[in-house]
Amino acid sequence: MTAAYYAGGESIRAGECVPVPPGPGQVQIRVSHCGICGTDLHIFHGKMDHRVHVPQVIGHEMSGTVTAAGPGVDAWNPGDRVTVRPVDYCGSCPACLAGHRHICMKLKFIGIDSPGAMQEFWTVPAHTLHRLPDSLSLELAALIEPIAVACHDVRLGELKAGEYAVVLGGGPIGLLIALVARGAGARVVVSEVNPFRVRLARELGLEAVDPNLDGLVDYVNAATGGAGADVVFEVTGSAAGAETMVKLPRTRGRIVMVAIHSQPVPVHLFQFFWRELRMIGARLYEPEDFDRAIALAGSGQLPLDRIVTDRIPLDRLEAGLRAMEQGGEVMKILVRCSG
Amino acid sequence: MTAAYYAGGESIRAGECVPVPPGPGQVQIRVSHCGICGTDLHIFHGKMDHRVHVPQVIGHEMSGTVTAAGPGVDAWNPGDRVTVRPVDYCGSCPACLAGHRHICMKLKFIGIDSPGAMQEFWTVPAHTLHRLPDSLSLELAALIEPIAVACHDVRLGELKAGEYAVVLGGGPIGLLIALVARGAGARVVVSEVNPFRVRLARELGLEAVDPNLDGLVDYVNAATGGAGADVVFEVTGSAAGAETMVKLPRTRGRIVMVAIHSQPVPVHLFQFFWRELRMIGARLYEPEDFDRAIALAGSGQLPLDRIVTDRIPLDRLEAGLRAMEQGGEVMKILVRCSG
Repeated sequence: MTAAYYAGGESIRAGECVPVPPGPGQVQIRVSHCGICGTDLHIFHGKMDHRVHVPQVIGHEMSGTVTAAGPGVDAWNPGDRVTVRPVDYCGSCPACLAGHRHICMKLKFIGIDSPGAMQEFWTVPAHTLHRLPDSLSLELAALIEPIAVACHDVRLGELKAGEYAVVLGGGPIGLLIALVARGAGARVVVSEVNPFRVRLARELGLEAVDPNLDGLVDYVNAATGGAGADVVFEVTGSAAGAETMVKLPRTRGRIVMVAIHSQPVPVHLFQFFWRELRMIGARLYEPEDFDRAIALAGSGQLPLDRIVTDRIPLDRLEAGLRAMEQGGEVMKILVRCSG
Repeated sequence: MTAAYYAGGESIRAGECVPVPPGPGQVQIRVSHCGICGTDLHIFHGKMDHRVHVPQVIGHEMSGTVTAAGPGVDAWNPGDRVTVRPVDYCGSCPACLAGHRHICMKLKFIGIDSPGAMQEFWTVPAHTLHRLPDSLSLELAALIEPIAVACHDVRLGELKAGEYAVVLGGGPIGLLIALVARGAGARVVVSEVNPFRVRLARELGLEAVDPNLDGLVDYVNAATGGAGADVVFEVTGSAAGAETMVKLPRTRGRIVMVAIHSQPVPVHLFQFFWRELRMIGARLYEPEDFDRAIALAGSGQLPLDRIVTDRIPLDRLEAGLRAMEQGGEVMKILVRCSG
């Protein structure tokens, strides 16, 4: 088996990879590892069937080695170690023209809207590639994509050294935001209800509280002399997160909206008015966020090996998705896509 | 009668003003005019009884002439024409120390938390005074306070010349935001359901649409080539406003939260994520907003006389509040507080 196909109805079908020769402007990569994202679980649950064409290979958090470059591609050669920034933009919509190509109004996300990386060979546009440093293993390089999300969130939140940040939700993205924020010189507390995740955050030297046990608002106020947090990252996607996020910031504090809230939820807009709060939506990443993520990961500053709680072969993908579904002692699961 | 007292239970009681001799750092003003604010109507309806000590003179949108300066006040002399920025801050809370004194965490708003301007003589801290230019009548100078709100909102929204702005809600604040935004070089459309207010906005040369009749989202998309608005000012305080505000901005567009939403309302946070929208809470004003409002009003650029739909004597205050309550053909009502 060299490819795993999402086949609809919560099923993953084993299959063979059909290598696609790279066309003009494309590059073929031998995929080393691919992390399972919450979005992949969403796809597995059938919630993105309007975008995914079954049977389809999914996956987008990857690392690999260039095997072939198509016509017109001069910057990449076989053997280059790379990761992919899986966004393909139109270049002509108002968002692209305004310089926001990562949130192109017709964005094709590679691995959702087109085949993904959970296969041995993957062919993508050359403009999506970023080079990996030798200091970084291909295994851990599969974490670059979620680290880039965290870098984007911290950057858009304009978090500065010495500031106090609260991360609501201690899953992979929340934890990476906390680590990137700490690396930026901020004091960080993670709010999380899963005891395993609380424990892991603490083992990584982060402050972590269970909001149901510890009184998060009181905790933050005590830690900030009653001022409140400078930045709150909402990564839970829950109604409780939307309720809590407005109670934590200082006057003129910022809330970074990282989570996907699929339905409207009650928000106490009064707090935005009263304390002149700001909310900043943050989606995906821009090239500079990938560059920053690669530099951070390559520097060895981040305890990335602790984020990875399981490594599985491609034919165990469905079991990996089920493990994520159940929660518990899971953070990031990596899938080995080639030997 | 020289003072109007809010006496609780939707009643205004006529009374005599008891002039307060200015203490150290204070100034006594003979009040010329005072506008009726939506907040005054809120007080009248008993919704702020936890802050107002009945019987209490209310009102804070005023103009007048200095009659006496207390000990230590050198900058002000009898005869000086002034308006008051009615915010009294503690100076020592985290918000004040961070430079956000206008949203002091212990803010006393003069006219709510202490006696207001609907009386002949009013004594206030000297630091609240702003000087009026000779070019501006005392009558129209009573509009400086709401114009300063509009200046603050436009400034915090970082609205630039050439940008497209939508103002949700065409009452006095919404209309002033629209006029200040137009003055800043923006293209502006006002969304309002009251036919009188739509008509008035149009007579002032503003684009105005009834969102129930005209399809606001389609209107804005058509006007912006499908991009969406650069800035949306939410001034309705309604659930409909909270629903609409997220549909209008362009990618990375801004929403300025001007309105008071007293209860949590459903907000489609997904749109903040998806289009990287930003929301900026805006409350009251800072000194520079008063300076800007005075300069604008003094320049004669704003059609302020058209905003004033009624002028009434002090003993008609309750009737004025009732007229505002009923809506209809009302914009700003000014109260003459001294002959």
